[in-house]
Amino acid sequence: MIAEEYKKMLGEKSVIRQLSEYAAERAEEIGYENVFDYSLGNPSVPVPQVFTDVLVELATRDDPGSVHGYSPSLGIASVREKIAASLKERFGLDYEKEHIFMTSGAAGAIAHALRAVTVSGDEVITFAPYFPEYNPYVNKTGAVLKIVPPDTEGFQINFAAFEKMFSSKVMAVIVNTPNNPTGIAYSSATIKKLARFLEEKEREYGHDIHLISDEPYREIVFENVDAPYVAGYYHNAITCYSFSKSLSLPGERIGYVAVNPACRDAKLIIEMCGQISRGIGHNCPPSIIQLAVAEVADLTADLSVYETNMNILYRELTGLGFSCVKPGGTFYMFPKALEEDAVAFCKRALKYDLILVPADSFGCPGYFRMAYCIPTEKVERSLAAFRKLAADYK
Amino acid sequence: MIAEEYKKMLGEKSVIRQLSEYAAERAEEIGYENVFDYSLGNPSVPVPQVFTDVLVELATRDDPGSVHGYSPSLGIASVREKIAASLKERFGLDYEKEHIFMTSGAAGAIAHALRAVTVSGDEVITFAPYFPEYNPYVNKTGAVLKIVPPDTEGFQINFAAFEKMFSSKVMAVIVNTPNNPTGIAYSSATIKKLARFLEEKEREYGHDIHLISDEPYREIVFENVDAPYVAGYYHNAITCYSFSKSLSLPGERIGYVAVNPACRDAKLIIEMCGQISRGIGHNCPPSIIQLAVAEVADLTADLSVYETNMNILYRELTGLGFSCVKPGGTFYMFPKALEEDAVAFCKRALKYDLILVPADSFGCPGYFRMAYCIPTEKVERSLAAFRKLAADYK
Repeated sequence: MIAEEYKKMLGEKSVIRQLSEYAAERAEEIGYENVFDYSLGNPSVPVPQVFTDVLVELATRDDPGSVHGYSPSLGIASVREKIAASLKERFGLDYEKEHIFMTSGAAGAIAHALRAVTVSGDEVITFAPYFPEYNPYVNKTGAVLKIVPPDTEGFQINFAAFEKMFSSKVMAVIVNTPNNPTGIAYSSATIKKLARFLEEKEREYGHDIHLISDEPYREIVFENVDAPYVAGYYHNAITCYSFSKSLSLPGERIGYVAVNPACRDAKLIIEMCGQISRGIGHNCPPSIIQLAVAEVADLTADLSVYETNMNILYRELTGLGFSCVKPGGTFYMFPKALEEDAVAFCKRALKYDLILVPADSFGCPGYFRMAYCIPTEKVERSLAAFRKLAADYK
Repeated sequence: MIAEEYKKMLGEKSVIRQLSEYAAERAEEIGYENVFDYSLGNPSVPVPQVFTDVLVELATRDDPGSVHGYSPSLGIASVREKIAASLKERFGLDYEKEHIFMTSGAAGAIAHALRAVTVSGDEVITFAPYFPEYNPYVNKTGAVLKIVPPDTEGFQINFAAFEKMFSSKVMAVIVNTPNNPTGIAYSSATIKKLARFLEEKEREYGHDIHLISDEPYREIVFENVDAPYVAGYYHNAITCYSFSKSLSLPGERIGYVAVNPACRDAKLIIEMCGQISRGIGHNCPPSIIQLAVAEVADLTADLSVYETNMNILYRELTGLGFSCVKPGGTFYMFPKALEEDAVAFCKRALKYDLILVPADSFGCPGYFRMAYCIPTEKVERSLAAFRKLAADYK
């Protein structure tokens, strides 16, 4: 019988996809270089040459069976060891292979983590603005996702609202720092306060509360920004990482779950992830991609262009009267629209071939997201369009 | 809250894994070349050189963004087109891009297909001996997997038992031909009979019944064997393919769902697959692997060694008194054990460093599986061990 739940999901076409389809059509008319497409979080800098070299070396090995052969369901042992060693070295936590599970990007990591630590009837909390795909990940476990309204002052955490929403049903909290869509990194103070609160609640309710840290932008942090490693502050932390942004390979779908070794069920959660994969027929990421990222786990692409772009746009937009919290990382910024209805605002922006994303679907109406992972010269050419757009509101 | 359902699954360690762990330990003692490991379905022949060449060409392109960038959730359009064209050319069905969904191997394909066409309370039927991982794929949709007892005469279909088991609750039937673990291909007569039966039942019950055809071994068919393309015989057929065996890259987790264009909901099922992926955070297989297999969709590794090995083993084992239906493809064979309890038999085989898999977990007690995807010279060296084993039963 056709599964109606999935059939229904088809009706809800995402705003971002609609915008990017519009951008593609417009590009056919006026050339893609003249469409200022700030809609897509697709990294604009190339993968590091060393990644390419490693990939070629692996592909051309004498013993292809060892490269293209089955991976164990938790990931290739040597890969998990290298990632654990890299995390241990960088962040000082006692990670070992047994704390690492290889996944299909951060998406796969979060979906696995949620299935491991929540069951039907549980609640999961996250903070607006938030990545809307958390909804299907949470819903499919039978749990319910609750959204804390945004702290629009600084896009840290609205603790008053969070504490009010919290109950004994909450088994997991999802944070995303540096954040998509705001570009803001949670400060040490924010993370400490969150960790202390969760510890208190664990004692009060007598059960574990897992902190799922979604951090594909961990390596894109700007100068002098306080952006600490979340798991360093909380024992029951599950880090969900993707190499998509740090290595500029979002299409290769590679990441991991790393459970804080101090977490009581750390090794159990990792082993459960392997069982969770069985039900979805996913098993594990491709062997050659696992082997390749393990060799460059400590490297990144040249990510400096994102800070350059941010500085140009932040200066220009705030100069034009936009209200915007300065990003601490990622390749996103999150200004307030110049009218209350951000959808209408972004529609108007299309007049000037500016593709901006209204933040309604991120749970933060009135704002818009800009993904400035585009060439700097294009950012500069787009400034005139922003000036015209702002002039419309004078 | 820790999800007990996954925790419990951990207790059920697979026999195959235990055997392969034993084989690894024994290999440390006496050298791997002296362990006759027939337990694992890991292809023994190298990937075709042209696959490696394509992979290197992709990895070293000037425009890495186009290779490593996001894939649409249904798969890269050009890849889906090439696969559709290849299937159309080879099997004469009117496949187009819209009938193809790229997956993480056949496992991902089957799990997606089942989620698309069954819901909680439905029944799914398959035929013993069968691949035990069908259980988690089916269970996670809320449906129930029913197993038709084997036709041990020829390992075709036990139609008498199948027809008796059938009811209006059955929404999908899974076939696997050429078959793991028997090595047998369903004949045209078998598939025709199955298709006619399902068509009758569709009319009788007034609803669609989907035939999920799991065919990772489609390209490994021996000389003069009648092994037709399943979807050519039935309109509501969903083909689940993997390149693992044909191209010798099981670790790269790449395959597809192809829905028969004659299926009423063909395009809908494919679009639903994209939504199903959202819930599990999987999205799509890696871009570079998709792009690479699309270039070699019509090629295979040199698979001739499997038939060579089969002929040597079939001659020797039947000569020793084993009862065995001659395989028509794959790299498996499925003899009857020399005592009633195949687990005891396989345990005895370990005395001679023969690693054989008892077929109890495939739903066919009393038989054992041999995966002869090992070098021919090793097959030959193993014959003396089989002779000693058989002598124990004289």
